[in-house]
Amino acid sequence: METVTIDHIGIAVRSIDEALGMYRDALGLDPVSRTVVEHERVEAAVLPTGGGRIELLQPTSDDSVIARFLRRRGQGVHHVALRVDNLEEAIETLRNSGRRLVTDRIQIGAEGYRYVFVHPGSTGGVLLELVERDRRQ
Amino acid sequence: METVTIDHIGIAVRSIDEALGMYRDALGLDPVSRTVVEHERVEAAVLPTGGGRIELLQPTSDDSVIARFLRRRGQGVHHVALRVDNLEEAIETLRNSGRRLVTDRIQIGAEGYRYVFVHPGSTGGVLLELVERDRRQ
Repeated sequence: METVTIDHIGIAVRSIDEALGMYRDALGLDPVSRTVVEHERVEAAVLPTGGGRIELLQPTSDDSVIARFLRRRGQGVHHVALRVDNLEEAIETLRNSGRRLVTDRIQIGAEGYRYVFVHPGSTGGVLLELVERDRRQ
Repeated sequence: METVTIDHIGIAVRSIDEALGMYRDALGLDPVSRTVVEHERVEAAVLPTGGGRIELLQPTSDDSVIARFLRRRGQGVHHVALRVDNLEEAIETLRNSGRRLVTDRIQIGAEGYRYVFVHPGSTGGVLLELVERDRRQ
C-alpha cells in the first residue's frame, strides 16, 4: 500500500499580511515563498512546518474561487492536500469506488507538482486535493 | 525557535463508517483507534498518515460541539492542530500579541496530550488547536 501524507492545508484569508501576524509572528512559521498563481487568481504564501505546509490563499480578483469561498463561508480552511506516491493509481481507485473529481484532468501546480481535487460530495464535505510531488520537492 | 508541525486535522462527519469508505477504503488510511471522548460527546477515529493524523469526529449527542458544527456548517474540517514544543511558551506569545484562546485552561486529550484551542477570531477563521505531546507519543 502506498504512503499517504498530509501535504498541506490551504487556508482562505482576506489578507496574507494580516494572517502572517498569527502564523509567522506568533507561531514562528516563516513563508518560503509568496507567489501569484495567475490562473487561480490567487496569491499563495507557503509556510513549511516540521511536517506539511500551510498555504495562505488571498484572492487577487473578485471572481476567483477563493474570493467566492470567502463571500460564502468566510475565512478558514479551503482545502486539505494529501500527498500520494502515484496519482494515477489513486485517481483510478477513487473512480472505481464511484467518487467524483472536481476536474478530470491532472493539473500542474506553481511548484511543478501534479494534482487533482476530489469533490467534497465524495469525501464527507472536505475539498480534498491529491498531490504527487517529485521526490526532490 | 521551536518547531511547529501539523499534528492533525479534525474533520466533522455525520458517520465515521461512511467517511471510512473514503479515507480507509479509497486512500488506504487505516484507523489506529476509535474512541468515544465522553466529555466532548464525540467518537473520534484516528488515522495516521506518513506525516500528521486525520481525526474523523462523529457526534454521540445532539448537543455536542460537533453536532452543532454539523448543523451550522455541514460536514468538513472542524479544526487544525499544530504541535508545538512548549505549550506554555506558545500560549504566552499568543496572549502577548492579543490573541484569544477558546478556554484559558490547558486541557488533556484522550491520548494524554495537552492542548488548547485558539479562537478563530484570532487566527483568520481557523479553529486552531495547539498540542504538546510527550516525545514518546
